[in-house]
Amino acid sequence: MDWGLVQGPVRRELAQVDRQLVRLFRSPIAIVNAVGLHFLSTRGKKFRPTLLLLVSRLEGPARRPHVTSATVVELIHAAALIHDDSVDKSSLRRGLPTVNHMWNDDVSIVVGDFLYSKAFETLVREELLRAMRVLADVTHHMAIGEALEIDFEGKLDLEESQYFDVIAAKTASLMGGACEIGAASPNGDSPNRAKARAQRFRRFGHAVGMAFQITDDVIDFLGHPSETGKKLGTDLREGKVTLPLIGALATLKSKKRERLVVLAAKRKLGKPEFKELVGLIEEGDGFTYAMSKARLYADQAKRLLGPEPDGSVKSALGHAVDYAVGRTR
Amino acid sequence: MDWGLVQGPVRRELAQVDRQLVRLFRSPIAIVNAVGLHFLSTRGKKFRPTLLLLVSRLEGPARRPHVTSATVVELIHAAALIHDDSVDKSSLRRGLPTVNHMWNDDVSIVVGDFLYSKAFETLVREELLRAMRVLADVTHHMAIGEALEIDFEGKLDLEESQYFDVIAAKTASLMGGACEIGAASPNGDSPNRAKARAQRFRRFGHAVGMAFQITDDVIDFLGHPSETGKKLGTDLREGKVTLPLIGALATLKSKKRERLVVLAAKRKLGKPEFKELVGLIEEGDGFTYAMSKARLYADQAKRLLGPEPDGSVKSALGHAVDYAVGRTR
Repeated sequence: MDWGLVQGPVRRELAQVDRQLVRLFRSPIAIVNAVGLHFLSTRGKKFRPTLLLLVSRLEGPARRPHVTSATVVELIHAAALIHDDSVDKSSLRRGLPTVNHMWNDDVSIVVGDFLYSKAFETLVREELLRAMRVLADVTHHMAIGEALEIDFEGKLDLEESQYFDVIAAKTASLMGGACEIGAASPNGDSPNRAKARAQRFRRFGHAVGMAFQITDDVIDFLGHPSETGKKLGTDLREGKVTLPLIGALATLKSKKRERLVVLAAKRKLGKPEFKELVGLIEEGDGFTYAMSKARLYADQAKRLLGPEPDGSVKSALGHAVDYAVGRTR
Repeated sequence: MDWGLVQGPVRRELAQVDRQLVRLFRSPIAIVNAVGLHFLSTRGKKFRPTLLLLVSRLEGPARRPHVTSATVVELIHAAALIHDDSVDKSSLRRGLPTVNHMWNDDVSIVVGDFLYSKAFETLVREELLRAMRVLADVTHHMAIGEALEIDFEGKLDLEESQYFDVIAAKTASLMGGACEIGAASPNGDSPNRAKARAQRFRRFGHAVGMAFQITDDVIDFLGHPSETGKKLGTDLREGKVTLPLIGALATLKSKKRERLVVLAAKRKLGKPEFKELVGLIEEGDGFTYAMSKARLYADQAKRLLGPEPDGSVKSALGHAVDYAVGRTR
């Protein structure tokens, strides 16, 4: 999966997002500046800004409000990661120390709050009221997702629908919001058509997000730490029950199911035990099951792209969908 | 100082705020519900909603948008307290355990994020765009205040202007914002007059907030724990250098000044040492100095009320100013 195929049509705009991020992180406040520099050095692929900008490019050249909205979406993502890493006591992200690990949880709280509020302050200052509406709603859903994760911690009988509720709130809502914002039509669409199109792209982003997160949860068991930049089995250690485990628990019978429950409940597993756990999930078709669900979401996303005219931007969005389910880290 | 004199004219609206808060805290998410119930039971005087509603009553009966804005202001205040208590490792607030103490820092992060996002989601849903603009800016200032406190932690040579920067961002900005929102004129004012009036009330709320926080910082040394519901000397233990100490350090000479620096740097003081420290601040006129500054801000606030017609609401606002500097907890 060549990531260049995805970002190609919006490379220039993504460079602008990078410059805006550097500017927004620059601050006379020493701690914000220090964390900002560290955080920018660990930045990944900017998947969410890429989605927003690609969707906007379907209807013509990307405009400045789209670039700024893309930057704000990345700020919100950064704030959420910083708070999440602190809640989850994570120490590594993409092979580099997390903010809570490099500084402490207090710094994580404060810098996260700084970035969230910077995001909304930027939207207000730039008069991006539509993006404001979307993102106020999205951040509330993200917070609901965080809270649900606390409610469901260590719940080995988590229902599939509860798992989907969590990842919809935590991950898919922001990708859905990013695509909805990207679909703002500059060229005098009728309000009804514009609304329907924006909602279609929210559903598109939502489906991509679901596919993305399910894949992420599979990688947490099967990935290569050298590629993912974090330890395997992190979710389990944090008491997060994800789809591969739910799927296997529904399939395995008696003794094997019992053994899987015992291992999963332990959370901290030695290497041989972790291997045994992965073997049992495999035996219960947990990974196959999870990836089949991820692919269903990916197919749904592609269908939602259907009405758009063919071209390089549409195929880049198709590649983005493939990336969500095809990546290995 | 009778608090009833302050709240009298808006008692009915404050009861509505209470009902809205209960509704907003009610959630199908167990952890949010549990923390909500605990938090509502520790709620104080609702000083910020009271200011907003009183200012709005100067121009006629309070309307529903003002009540909702007042509720949102209290949500933002609650979110900030929950995050602050976690950053500061506080264990008591108004005599009851803090969220981080009763649960843990993870719950504080998540519930704080939930309340911040609930605040903005409510503003968007109720189409309160003016309040949205004001509060996006205010929450960013509050986050800047939090970050500055980390930068300045344990800085015994903190300048007075730096102290004022911190409390302006941390405390005065939200009170200023609350009053600015309250000053929205329903009755067809010219835009220019409306804007000037809103800015005057922002300055009013800012001055009340400065007076309020300076007084708070004096109470942290001189209050009675049975009244304040928290330990004395909390600021010092958290490395927060406040105006009484800054004032005394500027006045005391040689040996006494050196001794005060040594004591303040220790942070954790036994009872006799804390008494000695308070005695030295007293000798350096630190408390008198701080309260004289607080009163200057209170006078400024009262002057800003000048143009308003006399009546029960204006005098309630006058009492609110007196409360900010006259309270003992």
